[in-house]
Amino acid sequence: MILTVTLNTALDITYRVPALKPHASHRVTEVIERPGGKGLNVARVLAALGHEVTVTGFTGGATGRTVQDGLAAVPGLVDALVPVGGPTRRTIALVDDRTGDTTQLNEPGPTITPAEWAAFQDAYEGLLATATAVALCGSLPPGVPVGAYAALVRAAKAAAVPVLLDTSGEPLRRGVAARPDIVKPNADELAELTGSHEPLRATQDARRRGARAVVASLGTQGLLAVTPEGRWRATPPTRLHGNPTGAGDSAVAGLLSGLVEQLPWPDRLSRAAALSAATVAARTAGEFDPAAYEELLPRIDTRVVMSASA
Amino acid sequence: MILTVTLNTALDITYRVPALKPHASHRVTEVIERPGGKGLNVARVLAALGHEVTVTGFTGGATGRTVQDGLAAVPGLVDALVPVGGPTRRTIALVDDRTGDTTQLNEPGPTITPAEWAAFQDAYEGLLATATAVALCGSLPPGVPVGAYAALVRAAKAAAVPVLLDTSGEPLRRGVAARPDIVKPNADELAELTGSHEPLRATQDARRRGARAVVASLGTQGLLAVTPEGRWRATPPTRLHGNPTGAGDSAVAGLLSGLVEQLPWPDRLSRAAALSAATVAARTAGEFDPAAYEELLPRIDTRVVMSASA
Repeated sequence: MILTVTLNTALDITYRVPALKPHASHRVTEVIERPGGKGLNVARVLAALGHEVTVTGFTGGATGRTVQDGLAAVPGLVDALVPVGGPTRRTIALVDDRTGDTTQLNEPGPTITPAEWAAFQDAYEGLLATATAVALCGSLPPGVPVGAYAALVRAAKAAAVPVLLDTSGEPLRRGVAARPDIVKPNADELAELTGSHEPLRATQDARRRGARAVVASLGTQGLLAVTPEGRWRATPPTRLHGNPTGAGDSAVAGLLSGLVEQLPWPDRLSRAAALSAATVAARTAGEFDPAAYEELLPRIDTRVVMSASA
Repeated sequence: MILTVTLNTALDITYRVPALKPHASHRVTEVIERPGGKGLNVARVLAALGHEVTVTGFTGGATGRTVQDGLAAVPGLVDALVPVGGPTRRTIALVDDRTGDTTQLNEPGPTITPAEWAAFQDAYEGLLATATAVALCGSLPPGVPVGAYAALVRAAKAAAVPVLLDTSGEPLRRGVAARPDIVKPNADELAELTGSHEPLRATQDARRRGARAVVASLGTQGLLAVTPEGRWRATPPTRLHGNPTGAGDSAVAGLLSGLVEQLPWPDRLSRAAALSAATVAARTAGEFDPAAYEELLPRIDTRVVMSASA
């Protein structure tokens, strides 16, 4: 199975309001709830692609139970979340029907105790025994040490399980130094890590910091990969309109599934770019549209990157 | 016991953010949850005053369980909420730390089926048998007939239980016609019911529509009561700064407790006005400050209203 780790799981709530007016009272016209956090999004896409996937991370309180009820409804997905005392956080995406814009409100998440963090690490090492690949995704909840991902990367490497890291800030900086197989920063995360806003230079720099391969997700410009086997750019055919929420998570699912299927890098990147574009195009934020994916896959332009052309 | 009815119970969530910017992403710095809906607020104040109080209405889903966990922690309060299939709604009060202003987001609530409404009416009639007074509070969830409060007022009168109605719009209009003992509109509700923005005229008009007594809550101007025993105005000593959330609910608790203790109207009104002001002054929205209540009670100016002076 593929293992995804979401230390800061969430109950993602989407509210629609006719028009957001600060300091006024609003009647919410539509409420949608789903399990959230990057690793859970990745797992849902992997399950939809037909992979056996196990999710771990933390769950707590009534919000955690709602998240777990939602996961139980996903065929092919096994819930191995570790219970904690504090409640799983909520995120609220407030969609203004007039403009289509979204205002985001993110709770910080429960504070994890040292004993809970130790219990998680034990559970994680047990799960690695049967994992074919692992993805470490998203922010850290309060209480988890900033070097957490570095420790989880080292444990995966000790167990000979390929490991992908998708996070930001100091947890990314420390995690990269532990030499993960793949990191997948977006443009902002890459610039924060390397200090460079030039994508090829920054991606190469990120690789020099310890990652075996770096796949940068550059929004409408697709993916840029720097790997030991070569450098590629994968670009969707047209500039897609829609909601980019979850597009990076779908790209991670594409990369991981391609890795366990031992696809060549260009095929992994085409799949990741097509899944990402099919997520932007989907009606529901964070889901991917399977028909759009099938239609987009052969139309992704994946080509070798020369130093001068990037 | 005193019975309070909250057909549209809520999980009230307060978020603090450093500064609300539409279409941006916000990290919530503080999350507070508590059982909400007007009748639950009234019940909490009654319990704090030492009354035995039973709450009924609807509860459902994970949010309903969280509401019930919160009620279980209130000494003197008995939970007789009726289970329904849909989840209890959330309300979100989004406080901007920079300005102190609040942006309110209210979910609509679960749709109540005809069978669930019938089950509630049976439970309500059973509870009336041991009630000394009943308060019917707040909005109706989808599916409950607009004449719901009129039916509940008639059932209370048939059981010889004094009944107070605190709602708005068409449910208030129909409920008043069923001749409740007390209605407690605020200035907006009173104007909507009667078409008049002149408080004394509107309060008298509301009484002519069927209520035995009308107590209008007029914000910083206190309470205006028109009853068979006379007309009074109860005014707090100073213009209080703070959060008016729940001030009307505290006034209802004051009126009900005074009714069951058979206090004269002026004493009921002083208590209601002091509780209301002590709620505005409290640190936590919707709670009342007991020390402020004790300090304010003797300083409420409650006096007979002449026609010309209102």
